Amino acid sequence: MPINHVAVVGGTHGNEPTGPHLLRLLAEKGIPASFSTFALHPVLANPLACSRNVRFVDQDLNRSFLTTDLADDSLQQYEARRAKEINQLIGPKGNAKTDLILDIHTSTANMGTTIILQSSSPFQMHLAAHVQSALPGVFIYAISAEAYTGGCDQPFLPSIAETGIGLEFGPIPNGILRHDLINRSYAATLACLEFIEQANRGSAPLPRQPVAYFEHVKTVPFPLDEVGHIDAVIHESLQDRDYFPLNPGDPMFVHRDGRVVHSSESEILYPVFINEAAYYPQKVAFSLTRKRTITL
Amino acid sequence: MPINHVAVVGGTHGNEPTGPHLLRLLAEKGIPASFSTFALHPVLANPLACSRNVRFVDQDLNRSFLTTDLADDSLQQYEARRAKEINQLIGPKGNAKTDLILDIHTSTANMGTTIILQSSSPFQMHLAAHVQSALPGVFIYAISAEAYTGGCDQPFLPSIAETGIGLEFGPIPNGILRHDLINRSYAATLACLEFIEQANRGSAPLPRQPVAYFEHVKTVPFPLDEVGHIDAVIHESLQDRDYFPLNPGDPMFVHRDGRVVHSSESEILYPVFINEAAYYPQKVAFSLTRKRTITL
Repeated sequence: MPINHVAVVGGTHGNEPTGPHLLRLLAEKGIPASFSTFALHPVLANPLACSRNVRFVDQDLNRSFLTTDLADDSLQQYEARRAKEINQLIGPKGNAKTDLILDIHTSTANMGTTIILQSSSPFQMHLAAHVQSALPGVFIYAISAEAYTGGCDQPFLPSIAETGIGLEFGPIPNGILRHDLINRSYAATLACLEFIEQANRGSAPLPRQPVAYFEHVKTVPFPLDEVGHIDAVIHESLQDRDYFPLNPGDPMFVHRDGRVVHSSESEILYPVFINEAAYYPQKVAFSLTRKRTITL
Repeated sequence: MPINHVAVVGGTHGNEPTGPHLLRLLAEKGIPASFSTFALHPVLANPLACSRNVRFVDQDLNRSFLTTDLADDSLQQYEARRAKEINQLIGPKGNAKTDLILDIHTSTANMGTTIILQSSSPFQMHLAAHVQSALPGVFIYAISAEAYTGGCDQPFLPSIAETGIGLEFGPIPNGILRHDLINRSYAATLACLEFIEQANRGSAPLPRQPVAYFEHVKTVPFPLDEVGHIDAVIHESLQDRDYFPLNPGDPMFVHRDGRVVHSSESEILYPVFINEAAYYPQKVAFSLTRKRTITL
């Protein structure tokens, strides 16, 4: 099925200015004239949060796209309303006029360039593998609805479309722009669009080797004290080691008195979003993934 | 003159949790029993901003300590009131019961471990030189009142005391803790206290070599567009190069269309606070310093 309409979304989180900057770059530079089989729709997702340089005003916009919530007119907070507007603009979810969404994010964690997939469907994997082959050091992180919510629906903005892709760039503090990350986000976005053009023309070559990806397993909370406050920090041997193996028994946290908390997993898993600032309110320290391969 | 009372201040900016964490470490671990010539007073400067994980609630607390503002009862915003409370607690400015203040900060810029001095007085330089010799890679950044305000008063919290020292640790995003930075901040604080103990006992050895430091020259604004918005980003060749020489003609900024803005300074200067998130609202890109040496 051809991809006729592509939405590039920036500013879903208002303190991640790289996405909005990329929208301006795309508007000013355009895309290669050879990309002629699809229309590109830029969307600035959360303008109020962007103007205030905050992740969100009332609630996380990127958790506001459950089908039930989009249909619930009693939800009237800013992001709940904005989710409905975006759903009208590029959706509606389940029958969307947009075939593919690229949602641009940044992380304070050492996430490099990560393609976040809603599923490990062959098409999404094929796209991700193309970007991986076009650019050095790209990671593929698959979060299925089952793994994330235990159900069959997802709250993320990209879930509006049949194919929803998150692009995550890090590490970068919130609220700033970095030249190198801007260049990386522009290159990764063009690589996605290049694949779409090739796929539409039936000329996207399959990868010659199995594709490695990281499948979401679970989130890991910080150790808490008796009143529920975060009581330890990420151990320095884990800090910045996103996508490196965490072995059973490896240090994960250290308390103020020096006590170390080790992994009690029975297998090697791969942490991601280590020490992401946005997850402190939920007291989430990182997520764990399993490394897998798929042959397309 | 002996240093009898030392205040260690954390949380002056509420989205820099390293300082408050250090206060808890100091309270729980204590300081070496051999440090017996001074009393240590911990101060959590901006508890409301800390609980909200924001730099400040109404205005920057660390710009709220001008003598005229402290005396102005019409200033009733949260930080203006909090400044007066802190001034009562450890001041008053000009006749303070606290002899020395250590104010703990973090930066999104690559500032390493930086000691910020209000002046290049021999005592402050001697303290900074001691920390530099005790710990690897410590920078000394001197901001005199004349350089900063053109006047003889300073708006910074440490200016309450005769000797006010800022300790700056980076790079770190706002709102998170890093194990390595916590350890660095603890070690630097102990090195400061060790010097105070030695100085009180008359046994602080003078450095054998001239001490290198960086003297504030000016702040450098981002290029702005015709309506006053930031219109370029820090060039990637300058990003993270705090304390490296910026030569005349070196790239500083790059516009979206690729145009590069070069340094038009006539001498080598040393940038600091490059791409600090907190300075975006003032549209400040970095500061420039001059490298100097002093023989104590």
